[in-house]
Amino acid sequence: MNQFIYAADLFGTVVFAISGALAAGRLRMDPFGVLVLAGVTAVGGGTVRDAILGATPVFWVTDTLYVWLIGLTATLVMLLVRCPRRLSGKWFQVADAIGLAVFTVIGAQKALAFGASPIIAVMMGTMTGVMGGMIRDVLCREVPLVLRTEIYATACIAGGILYTGALALQLDAVLAAIIAMIGTLVLRLFGIFSGLSLPAFALDNRPKG
Amino acid sequence: MNQFIYAADLFGTVVFAISGALAAGRLRMDPFGVLVLAGVTAVGGGTVRDAILGATPVFWVTDTLYVWLIGLTATLVMLLVRCPRRLSGKWFQVADAIGLAVFTVIGAQKALAFGASPIIAVMMGTMTGVMGGMIRDVLCREVPLVLRTEIYATACIAGGILYTGALALQLDAVLAAIIAMIGTLVLRLFGIFSGLSLPAFALDNRPKG
Amino acid sequence: MNQFIYAADLFGTVVFAISGALAAGRLRMDPFGVLVLAGVTAVGGGTVRDAILGATPVFWVTDTLYVWLIGLTATLVMLLVRCPRRLSGKWFQVADAIGLAVFTVIGAQKALAFGASPIIAVMMGTMTGVMGGMIRDVLCREVPLVLRTEIYATACIAGGILYTGALALQLDAVLAAIIAMIGTLVLRLFGIFSGLSLPAFALDNRPKG
Repeated sequence: MNQFIYAADLFGTVVFAISGALAAGRLRMDPFGVLVLAGVTAVGGGTVRDAILGATPVFWVTDTLYVWLIGLTATLVMLLVRCPRRLSGKWFQVADAIGLAVFTVIGAQKALAFGASPIIAVMMGTMTGVMGGMIRDVLCREVPLVLRTEIYATACIAGGILYTGALALQLDAVLAAIIAMIGTLVLRLFGIFSGLSLPAFALDNRPKG
Repeated sequence: MNQFIYAADLFGTVVFAISGALAAGRLRMDPFGVLVLAGVTAVGGGTVRDAILGATPVFWVTDTLYVWLIGLTATLVMLLVRCPRRLSGKWFQVADAIGLAVFTVIGAQKALAFGASPIIAVMMGTMTGVMGGMIRDVLCREVPLVLRTEIYATACIAGGILYTGALALQLDAVLAAIIAMIGTLVLRLFGIFSGLSLPAFALDNRPKG
Repeated sequence: MNQFIYAADLFGTVVFAISGALAAGRLRMDPFGVLVLAGVTAVGGGTVRDAILGATPVFWVTDTLYVWLIGLTATLVMLLVRCPRRLSGKWFQVADAIGLAVFTVIGAQKALAFGASPIIAVMMGTMTGVMGGMIRDVLCREVPLVLRTEIYATACIAGGILYTGALALQLDAVLAAIIAMIGTLVLRLFGIFSGLSLPAFALDNRPKG
């Protein structure tokens, strides 16, 4: 794997682990809970992706650097963070957006490497980006935020389409990855700074059945 | 695979996707949430089944028609459905029962094709039928309906037993599948039209531990 | 597998299945719900472990004794248990602790058998011990208890470290397993009888983002 993408992947892992650890702190979990939520947020999406593709043992079993980083991140968050508001400002969302962009491209790459078609690559990219946060929310007994609001998953879908589209146009794989990451990032940043959301599909009547 | 069973499988996929999309609409999710809920309801059970059996990449990675159908169904539901009550009447439940019957037999078939024993085939058939809806309910922050009420999973179990039993009696595989599908369907329809449920196992005292 | 560890594993499966069936009874589930909760509590952790390691078909597909035992246990709980308080006293917690100790060592063993490194073995041991209960709690719409309180997962982590440490010191595999099981058990019993918990990581301010 390209060294730059690997470094960006580790960066995204740390950012996502922080977001999981903070969610655990808000529910007053014990240190094990903090570890679990940091872990599922950071590598939950990639784990489900690998299980679906049959890419087992999953990536963090083979490369344990992810696991060490998550443990270190969770520990530092517990020791150092007292005021989570500082970690939920715009700059943290920008860091999260970078992680999202990298995860999306890595997920799409891996699907293609396993012979999947473009639509599956888009799905796997999106899954890698958003499913960790979804599992975190379910463990916190919340309807996953990503299903309800903001331009988040949409940025992943667009990034996956950019990536597979660029490859279909015979672009160089590294160039395609860069285009897709920038596309995901820009769209997500637009979502953060504009505050816009997609319109909800709202059914008012709860059916009896 | 038999053309008839394949067509019935696609029919069940659409019906289950509609049920997932409606659940998303009731929670006022955005379009991505509608897609996710349509998808997990339609193929969630088969995905877990394939991951447990080691049948990876899972079926919809190989045959992307399922994915396209789910995307199309979710889109049409968002565009067309304004009055979900029409989609929760008895006829929709009958369509759902047909999907349930097909999913059950396909799940049991796949387990046997992977060398599993009859009891596992019954489990995998049931899992294919009901687990998608269970994941949908968890994402909607509800205790899965199928665990609490109605003759639903019971119909799958009966269908799985019919299928493996018919094969044990040396019946033709197609005949066994038809018998099992009809058995599942009849039992489920009985549940729908009689309104009967299995008795609950109710413990009153919430223990301290 | 060593006969003693196999017997202890079956014992743990029964105890965990009872705990799942009781949770189903408290939510007034139907018999299928009781089966499902007994099953996920008993083998949910090992199933996720096997899917992550690529040890598929997962263990209970190959050795159906686990499935029969869970079905029998769930049935007996429904028929016999009327007063769950008796099954939540200290002696049931001790039985649960024995199951936890065995599951931890078996999970770590399996990870090592698949070529995983020690830190992954510790994780897989812990996952085998606690994830079934976590899935049970999610299906019951509760934030998993193990993430919030008590010396439970901590005992698994300590047991996994003892096991991989003993092997690193060239101890005999059976001796290492015994040491690790006793270590897990003692630490968990200390948690039960002392009532001590780890300090929570509590963030008061729910951030706006």
